[in-house]
Amino acid sequence: MSAITAPLVASLVGLLFVVFLVIEVLRKSPGNELMDRLSRAVQTGARAFLKREYSTVAVVVAVVALAIALAPLLAGNPNLPLGWRTSVAFIIGAVVSAIAGYVGMSIATRANSRTTQAAVDGGVRGALGVAVSAGAVMGMSVASLALLGLVAVYWIFREPAIVNGYAMGASLVALFARTGGGLFTKGADMAADLVGKVEANIPEDDPRNPAVIADNVGDNVGDVAGLGADLLESYVESIIASMALAVALLGFGHVAAERLVQLPLFIASAGIIASILGILFVKAVGRRNPQAALMGGTYVAAVLTAVASWFIIRNLGTSFTFGEKTYSVMGPFYATVAGIASGVIVGFVSEFFTSGKYRPVRNLAESSQMGPAITVTSGTAVGMASTAVPVVVIGFAVVIAHHFSGMYGVAMAAFGMLATTGMVVAVDSYGPVADNAGGIAEMAKLDPSVRKITDNLDAVGNTTAAIGKGFAIGSAAFAAIGLLTAYMVSAGIKHADIADPKVMAGLLVGGMLPFYFSSMLFGAVSKVAFKMIDEVRRQFREIPGLLKGEVMPDSATCVDISTRGAIAGMLGPGVLAILVPVAVGFYDPKALAGLLVGAVVTGVVLGIQMANSGGAMDNAKKYIEDGNFGGKGSEAHKASVVGDTVGDPLKDTVGPSINILIKLMSVIALVLAPLFVK
Amino acid sequence: MSAITAPLVASLVGLLFVVFLVIEVLRKSPGNELMDRLSRAVQTGARAFLKREYSTVAVVVAVVALAIALAPLLAGNPNLPLGWRTSVAFIIGAVVSAIAGYVGMSIATRANSRTTQAAVDGGVRGALGVAVSAGAVMGMSVASLALLGLVAVYWIFREPAIVNGYAMGASLVALFARTGGGLFTKGADMAADLVGKVEANIPEDDPRNPAVIADNVGDNVGDVAGLGADLLESYVESIIASMALAVALLGFGHVAAERLVQLPLFIASAGIIASILGILFVKAVGRRNPQAALMGGTYVAAVLTAVASWFIIRNLGTSFTFGEKTYSVMGPFYATVAGIASGVIVGFVSEFFTSGKYRPVRNLAESSQMGPAITVTSGTAVGMASTAVPVVVIGFAVVIAHHFSGMYGVAMAAFGMLATTGMVVAVDSYGPVADNAGGIAEMAKLDPSVRKITDNLDAVGNTTAAIGKGFAIGSAAFAAIGLLTAYMVSAGIKHADIADPKVMAGLLVGGMLPFYFSSMLFGAVSKVAFKMIDEVRRQFREIPGLLKGEVMPDSATCVDISTRGAIAGMLGPGVLAILVPVAVGFYDPKALAGLLVGAVVTGVVLGIQMANSGGAMDNAKKYIEDGNFGGKGSEAHKASVVGDTVGDPLKDTVGPSINILIKLMSVIALVLAPLFVK
Repeated sequence: MSAITAPLVASLVGLLFVVFLVIEVLRKSPGNELMDRLSRAVQTGARAFLKREYSTVAVVVAVVALAIALAPLLAGNPNLPLGWRTSVAFIIGAVVSAIAGYVGMSIATRANSRTTQAAVDGGVRGALGVAVSAGAVMGMSVASLALLGLVAVYWIFREPAIVNGYAMGASLVALFARTGGGLFTKGADMAADLVGKVEANIPEDDPRNPAVIADNVGDNVGDVAGLGADLLESYVESIIASMALAVALLGFGHVAAERLVQLPLFIASAGIIASILGILFVKAVGRRNPQAALMGGTYVAAVLTAVASWFIIRNLGTSFTFGEKTYSVMGPFYATVAGIASGVIVGFVSEFFTSGKYRPVRNLAESSQMGPAITVTSGTAVGMASTAVPVVVIGFAVVIAHHFSGMYGVAMAAFGMLATTGMVVAVDSYGPVADNAGGIAEMAKLDPSVRKITDNLDAVGNTTAAIGKGFAIGSAAFAAIGLLTAYMVSAGIKHADIADPKVMAGLLVGGMLPFYFSSMLFGAVSKVAFKMIDEVRRQFREIPGLLKGEVMPDSATCVDISTRGAIAGMLGPGVLAILVPVAVGFYDPKALAGLLVGAVVTGVVLGIQMANSGGAMDNAKKYIEDGNFGGKGSEAHKASVVGDTVGDPLKDTVGPSINILIKLMSVIALVLAPLFVK
Repeated sequence: MSAITAPLVASLVGLLFVVFLVIEVLRKSPGNELMDRLSRAVQTGARAFLKREYSTVAVVVAVVALAIALAPLLAGNPNLPLGWRTSVAFIIGAVVSAIAGYVGMSIATRANSRTTQAAVDGGVRGALGVAVSAGAVMGMSVASLALLGLVAVYWIFREPAIVNGYAMGASLVALFARTGGGLFTKGADMAADLVGKVEANIPEDDPRNPAVIADNVGDNVGDVAGLGADLLESYVESIIASMALAVALLGFGHVAAERLVQLPLFIASAGIIASILGILFVKAVGRRNPQAALMGGTYVAAVLTAVASWFIIRNLGTSFTFGEKTYSVMGPFYATVAGIASGVIVGFVSEFFTSGKYRPVRNLAESSQMGPAITVTSGTAVGMASTAVPVVVIGFAVVIAHHFSGMYGVAMAAFGMLATTGMVVAVDSYGPVADNAGGIAEMAKLDPSVRKITDNLDAVGNTTAAIGKGFAIGSAAFAAIGLLTAYMVSAGIKHADIADPKVMAGLLVGGMLPFYFSSMLFGAVSKVAFKMIDEVRRQFREIPGLLKGEVMPDSATCVDISTRGAIAGMLGPGVLAILVPVAVGFYDPKALAGLLVGAVVTGVVLGIQMANSGGAMDNAKKYIEDGNFGGKGSEAHKASVVGDTVGDPLKDTVGPSINILIKLMSVIALVLAPLFVK
C-alpha cells in the first residue's frame, strides 16, 4: 500500500468502527423519564454552547484564512509558498477538528444517562461497556478524521509546506475549544462547589443546585470536546513536524526526505488499527477489573504500534544525512521509543504526585488541617516539585532522540506517544461520561449503589488518564521543538545564539507569554464564576422552596452565563496567541525563534505544575472525604474544598491551554516563516 | 584618583557616615521599660538566629572554599585560574556580606522602640528621622563594605578572574540569608495571622499572640538582613559582570579592557557619595511630607550618580571593539541610562499592580467577596498579568544596551540601577523598622495615635520600596545575562544555538529549576508555619489566662521554632543551587549555558509574578480593612486574609530568593568555567 492508501484505508476502518460504536451506544436505554430529561438538558446545553463557540471561531478562521490567501499579494511576492492552497488546507484542518469535537460530544452527552441505566441493569460491567464505547467514539473520531483530512490535503496538494496550514487550522480550533470549554466547565464547577457545598451545605451534584447542569455540560464541552480537539492538534502536529523537518533539512523532492515524510503516515495507520484492537480488548476484558482492562488496552495499543513501526521503519525507512552526521535506518525507531518511554515516565510521575495512594497528596491532605492558605501553598508546592523529573526526562529524551535521528527524531518522539491517540482519547473521554453518569444518578435520586459504581469507574479512569496527560505534555514539548526547528530552517536562520541580544529578548518575552496568557484565562474564569455565584445565590434566595427541593432550579440561565462567559473569555487569549508570533516575526525572525523556545520552556514547566497542583488538590479533598483527617464537614475538608476550587481552573482550564499556546505559536511561525525572511 | 583610591576613599567616607548614624540612633531613648523589654526580646531573637544561621553557612563556605582551593590539584592542572587565591577572595566576599548583615540588623532591632518613642516625643518628623537613619545604616554598610572588600581583593590580586570568587562568596551568603530570613519571617507571620486573626479573633501584633515577637524578629532577619545581603550580592555582581566581560571579550591586559574594568569602580564611588547626599536630603526635607522626602532622596541620589557617571565615562572611558563592532566612548553611559530607565518602569508597574490606589488591587479586593478560592486565583492572575510590561521592557533594554555597548553594556545597565544601592537599601530597610515600631506601640498599648504615625511611615515606605524591587529584579536579570555571557567566553563556547539539543535540554532543565527551588522553599515555609500554628494553638489552649491578657505568652519557643525551621529549610535549596550548575557544567558546558538562560527566563518571570501577586493580595486585604467591601470582620476580609497568607511567602520568601538563585548559579558557572573546558 502507498503512503496515501494505507492511511486512507485505516481511517475509513476507524470511521466504520465509530459508526458501530455509535449504534451500540444509542441502542441502550436512556433510563427513566427523569434521567432522560436530565440527559437532554445536558445535551441541549452542550449543543447550544458548541454552536455559539463554532460560530465565533468561524469568524476568526475566516479572517485568518483570508489573510493567508492574500499574503502573497499583500507581500508583493507571488512566489511565496502561502496563498489560497495553504488557506484551503487551513480551513480543512479547522473543519475536521470541529466535526470530530461535535461527533464525540454528541455521543458523550447521550451516553451519560445510558451509562447510569446500564449500571442499574448490568452493574460495573454494563456501565463500563457504555462509557468506554462513548469515549471510543471521541477517540476514534479524532484519530480517523485527523488522518483522513491530513492525507486528503497531502494527496490534493502533494506538498508538505501546504500541509502545515492543515495543522494550523486544527491548532487554532483546538485553542478555542480548550480555552472555551475550560472556561465553561470551571466557571460552573467553581460556583457549584462554592455556593452549594461551602455556603448552602448541600452535597455535590445535588439537583437543587442551579449550576449542576452547567457543570455537567462543562464536563462534556471541556473534557470531551476540548480534550479531543487538543489531542487532535497534537496528533496532526507531531506528524506535520516530522514531515516538515524531513523536507526542511533534506530538501523537497530528495529521495530520503520523501521516505521520511511517509513514515509517520504508515505508522499512524498502524496506530489506528492498534487502537481499535486496544478498545476491543477493554470491552472484552473489562468485566472483572476495569482498572486492569483500561491499562491493558492502553498497553496493547502501544505495544502493537511499536511492533508495527519496527517493521515499517525497517522496510520503508532509510538512512539519511543531516549536516555532517549520518543516521541509521532504524534511528527513527529508537527516537520513537525514547519518546514513548519518556511519556510513560511523565505519566507515572503525574500519578505519583496526584494520587491519594502516595505521600504527596496525603501530606497535602494533612496540611489542610492548617487552613486554606497552607493548603493552597502546599498544593502549589506539590505541583512545582512534580516538574523536576518530567522536565529532566524530556530534556534527556530530546538529547537521545536527536542522537539517533537528529531533529527528525525529536519530532518522531512526539509522534511515538501520539500514534495511539485513538486509544488515549478514548480512555480520557471515558472519565467525563462516567462522571456525568454519576451526576445523573445523584440528581435522579437512584439507589446509592448506582452512584458507587459510577464513582468507581470515574476513579479508575483517573489513573489511566494520568498517562494520557503525560503523553499530552511530553508530545507538546517535542512537537513544539520540532516545529520551531522546522521554522528556523524555513526562515533561513543558521544560528540563533542564546547570547545574541535579540534571541535573549525573545526568550524573555516568550517565557513571559504563558504567564500573561494564564492571567487572561484566570481573569476570565473568575469572571464566569463570579457571575455564576451571584446567580446561584440569587436563585437560592429568590426561588421559594428551592432549597427544600420542592421546585427545580433555573438551570438554563446558568448554562447561558457559562456560555457567554466562555465565548467572551476565549477571544483575548486566542488573539494574543495569533498576533504575538506574527508581530515578533516581522520585527526579527531570530527574536521569534527565541520567543518560541522561551514559551516552550516556561510553558512545559508551568503546564506540568498546574496540571499536578490541580490534580493533587482535587485528590487531597477526595482523600479527606474518604474519612481521613476528620472527613467531610471538618475544618480540614473545608480547607481542601478551597484548595480544590483553586486547583480546578489550574488543571482543566489554564494548564491544558498552555500546551496549545506553545504549539499554536510554533505552527504559526512555521506557516508564516517565508514572510519573515529578510 | 586611581581606580583603587577613589573607591577606597568613598567607602571609608561611607563607613564614617555609618558610625555617625549609629551614634545618632543609639542616643535616642528606647522608650519605657515595657517597650525596651519588647525591643530586647526582638534583639535577642534576631541575634540568636543570625548566630545559628552564620554558623551553618560557615560550614558550607568552608567546604566550598576548600573545594575551590584544591580544584587545580584535583583536576591535575596547576595552571587552572582557580586555587587558594580565588578561595581567599570567596571567603572575603562571604565575610563582608555577613558583617554588613550583622551591623544593619543590630541597629535595626535597636531602632524599633526608639522609633516608637520618637513618634511619641516628636511625631512623624521624629519617627521618620530615627527609622531612616537605621535603614541608612544597613544601606551604607552594604554599599561601603561591598566596595571596600571588592577593591581590597582587586588590589591584592590584581586579576579580575580572582575577583569573581569575591562575588561568589557574597552570592552564597545572600542565598542563605534570603532563604533563611524569608523562612523565618513568613513561617512566623503566617502562623501569627492564621491562629491570631482568623481563629482567636485578636488583632494583628497583639501581645497575647505568642508568635508576634517571632514575627517581629522575622521582619529584621528577613527584610533587613536578608534584603541587605541580596542587594549587596547584586551590587557586587553587576560590577564583577562588567569587569569580567571587559576582560573576557577584550583580553586581560588590553588597554581598553583596563579602562572598562575601572569604570564601574569610579561610578560606584560616586554612587556612595550620592547616596549619602540622598539620605541627608531625606533627613532634611522629611519633616513635612515623608513620601516626597523618600522619593526625592532616591531621585537625588540617582540623578547625581547619573551626572557623575557622564563625566566619569567621558573622561575615563574609551571606545572599544568587540567582534566586528566598534562602540563609542559614551556607549556605556547610554547603556547605563537604559538600565536605570527600565528599572524605574519595572518599579512603576509593580506599584500599579500592587497598590490599593489602582484598579488591579481594588478588583482583587472586590473578588474577595466570592470567597478565598477566587481571591487566590485572582491574586495569582494579577501577578501573572503584571509580568508582561516588565519583561518586555527588560527585553528591550537588553537590546538597547547591547546596541550601544555590546554585552559590556548589558552588565553596565545592571550596574546603573545599583550604583545607588546605599540609598535603595536604606529606603527598603526603613520599612521593617517602622513596621516593628508599630508592633511595639501595639504591644506596649500606647495611644492609638502613635500606631497611626508608624503605620503611615510604613505605608509610605511601600511605594518607594516598589521601585527598589524593580531595580532588584531588573538588575538581577541584566547581571545574570552579563555573567552568563562572561561564562560562555571563559568556557570557550563560541555558539550556543537554541536548536542544539544539549542547549535545548539545558534550557528546559534550567527553566524548571526555579519551580523546583520554589517548591522546596514552599515546603519548608509550610513546615515552619505548621509547627508554629501547633505551638500557638497549644499556648492558647494550655496557658491559663493568656487569651484574657493576664499572662505573657512564651515567645521564646516560637522564635526557636522559626530558627530551627529556617536553618533546616535553607540547606536543601542552597545545595541545589550549588550542585546543579557544577554537575551540568561537567556534563557539557553548552548545556550549562542553556541551563543558565532557562533559569533566568523563568526566574525573572516567576520572581515578578510572585512579588506582585503577594503585594497585591497584601494590599487588597489592607484596602478591605480600610472599610471597603464590608471592612474588617466581613467574609470578604476573611477571604482576603487567606489571600494575604498565601501571598506572604510568595513575596517575602520564595520570590526574592529566585533572584539570588539565578545570580548564584551564573557566578558559580563563571568561577568554575575553566574546569569545564574540554
